[in-house]
Amino acid sequence: MKKIINKPEDYVNEMLEGLYAAHPDLITYTNDDLRCLVTAKKKAGKVGIATGGGSGHLPLFLGYVGEGMLDGCSVGDVFQSPSAEQMAAVTREIDDGAGVLYIYGNYNGDIFNFDMAAEMVDFEDDIRVESVVAGEDVASAAPGAPGEKNTRRGVAGIIFVYKCAGAAAAAMLDLDNVKRVAEKAAANVRTMGVALTPCTVPRVGEPGFSIGDDEMEIGMGIHGEAGIRRGKLEPADQIVDEMLDKIVADLPYAAGDEVAVLINGLGATPLDEQYIVTRRVDQYLKEKGIRVHRYYVGEYATALEMAGFSISLLKLDDELKTYLDAPARTPFFVA
Amino acid sequence: MKKIINKPEDYVNEMLEGLYAAHPDLITYTNDDLRCLVTAKKKAGKVGIATGGGSGHLPLFLGYVGEGMLDGCSVGDVFQSPSAEQMAAVTREIDDGAGVLYIYGNYNGDIFNFDMAAEMVDFEDDIRVESVVAGEDVASAAPGAPGEKNTRRGVAGIIFVYKCAGAAAAAMLDLDNVKRVAEKAAANVRTMGVALTPCTVPRVGEPGFSIGDDEMEIGMGIHGEAGIRRGKLEPADQIVDEMLDKIVADLPYAAGDEVAVLINGLGATPLDEQYIVTRRVDQYLKEKGIRVHRYYVGEYATALEMAGFSISLLKLDDELKTYLDAPARTPFFVA
Repeated sequence: MKKIINKPEDYVNEMLEGLYAAHPDLITYTNDDLRCLVTAKKKAGKVGIATGGGSGHLPLFLGYVGEGMLDGCSVGDVFQSPSAEQMAAVTREIDDGAGVLYIYGNYNGDIFNFDMAAEMVDFEDDIRVESVVAGEDVASAAPGAPGEKNTRRGVAGIIFVYKCAGAAAAAMLDLDNVKRVAEKAAANVRTMGVALTPCTVPRVGEPGFSIGDDEMEIGMGIHGEAGIRRGKLEPADQIVDEMLDKIVADLPYAAGDEVAVLINGLGATPLDEQYIVTRRVDQYLKEKGIRVHRYYVGEYATALEMAGFSISLLKLDDELKTYLDAPARTPFFVA
Repeated sequence: MKKIINKPEDYVNEMLEGLYAAHPDLITYTNDDLRCLVTAKKKAGKVGIATGGGSGHLPLFLGYVGEGMLDGCSVGDVFQSPSAEQMAAVTREIDDGAGVLYIYGNYNGDIFNFDMAAEMVDFEDDIRVESVVAGEDVASAAPGAPGEKNTRRGVAGIIFVYKCAGAAAAAMLDLDNVKRVAEKAAANVRTMGVALTPCTVPRVGEPGFSIGDDEMEIGMGIHGEAGIRRGKLEPADQIVDEMLDKIVADLPYAAGDEVAVLINGLGATPLDEQYIVTRRVDQYLKEKGIRVHRYYVGEYATALEMAGFSISLLKLDDELKTYLDAPARTPFFVA
């Protein structure tokens, strides 16, 4: 795999240096650590919102720090959790007395470190922290009964949780209510992806897995986690229908529902193809009587140079719609 | 090459159907032809701005139609010019008595058809049309003396011409002045690209050329036109330095100049790598004493699933800076 990089071990920090050079009006860092990214637009008295996770998913996670969404992000190595110390440093910087909400994806390393960071800032700094763990990937749902531990991976749909919670915080809701909005968004979003090619972690230098030249894998995760079915590459419409059948049945989404839709490129899939997907999604949802409030199409959560895409639906009520449509300005998201 | 498509012959129209489904508030089409794309936000009495070109370059060209940039775009097959008839239909729709400016890239097919379209609407509809042909690719400059016919291909830097001219038109300048602003932007932008992989036109089904597994081609065009040097893939900083040496010397850009910078991914290059490039561009320009007004990083003009990137510089004066920073809202550009 060809990469436009210098030394693989400098990959994350050099990416961050470029990011700070390009967006000095929106983001900066704290604790003398490039990986403790915080907003340059701190709003007094507001609930802080922090996220974090491994690198290799731009614009996820750090790209949504700015105005009207997130206030901080701790940045890990490629596909690895940042440390609890980094999360705690970000938390201290963004807290302004109203407490901090953590929103992050359902991965063991992140859960472990975010829980530890929450304990640290509670004990050492008396900062109140609440957490919402986003996990909406239909492909990784456990087959068990409702109410069991959430086994779903957090993937692109977390953007909707960021956006709604970020707007609620910007509207000066208190921590309990910002958490309530985040939980509502998280509970109403579902995602499924498909991968056509693997991706290569720079330090490793070779793909973590392989997919045949004529194959795709439905349900593959953004770190290459196994999906639910591998098979021959099919026409776009057929792939979309299979994914939407599973997504729509899962929540379920029903006729008369109003949704926001995210068509997300995983890294190497051209926008043209993402719009060919959008076309079929639109036809499918019309047939089901599900109304679309708005579409987001593009790269929102990637897996390095993986080819493929994901589809996320967010079921809306009036409150979520208001927060989704509220203004925001970050390096990768302007609304 | 794996593509998420249905029938290759439906590629462009299905992409357009997806685009209209996703952005009904911003764009629509005229003449009962999906490929005659026009703004849904027409502003009375304003100079219209039209562009056009082959598909396969999203967000270029059509993605910049909306508010504050372009008013219409005729859409060709992949890597092929739209017809003069399509251009004329777009022109008729967007003219509101103030005339229309064509801004398009320096390719023979486009020049031929846009010139014919201008004649058609002048003769049949009495619409005044002026044209600015953008060509800023340093790699395709003829070695001859200044003042010769412009041999430079139009690539990603055309975005700057769209943005400045679009803002001038939105400010209700007349056609002569909108053209003057477009020409000034076009004269002050320079671009160079590098390609790491080829791309495949859907109807053709195989790559139009090949690049060795350890090779790159500096200066390659967005349709795979030959560049100025093919060689072993080098570290990111070294590639950036070679490209910037040529770009900076070409205008030339000098210490004390203020510029806008576009780091543009060609389709399959992750954002992380684009920011590693941005880091070195920022270091280089600082060393040269060239000030950066703002950065744009992401996919602005692509070549299907080609891996690689381009760098564009726009030298600013107060007028261009004002127009660059003015608000705009299109499916792919919000400012």
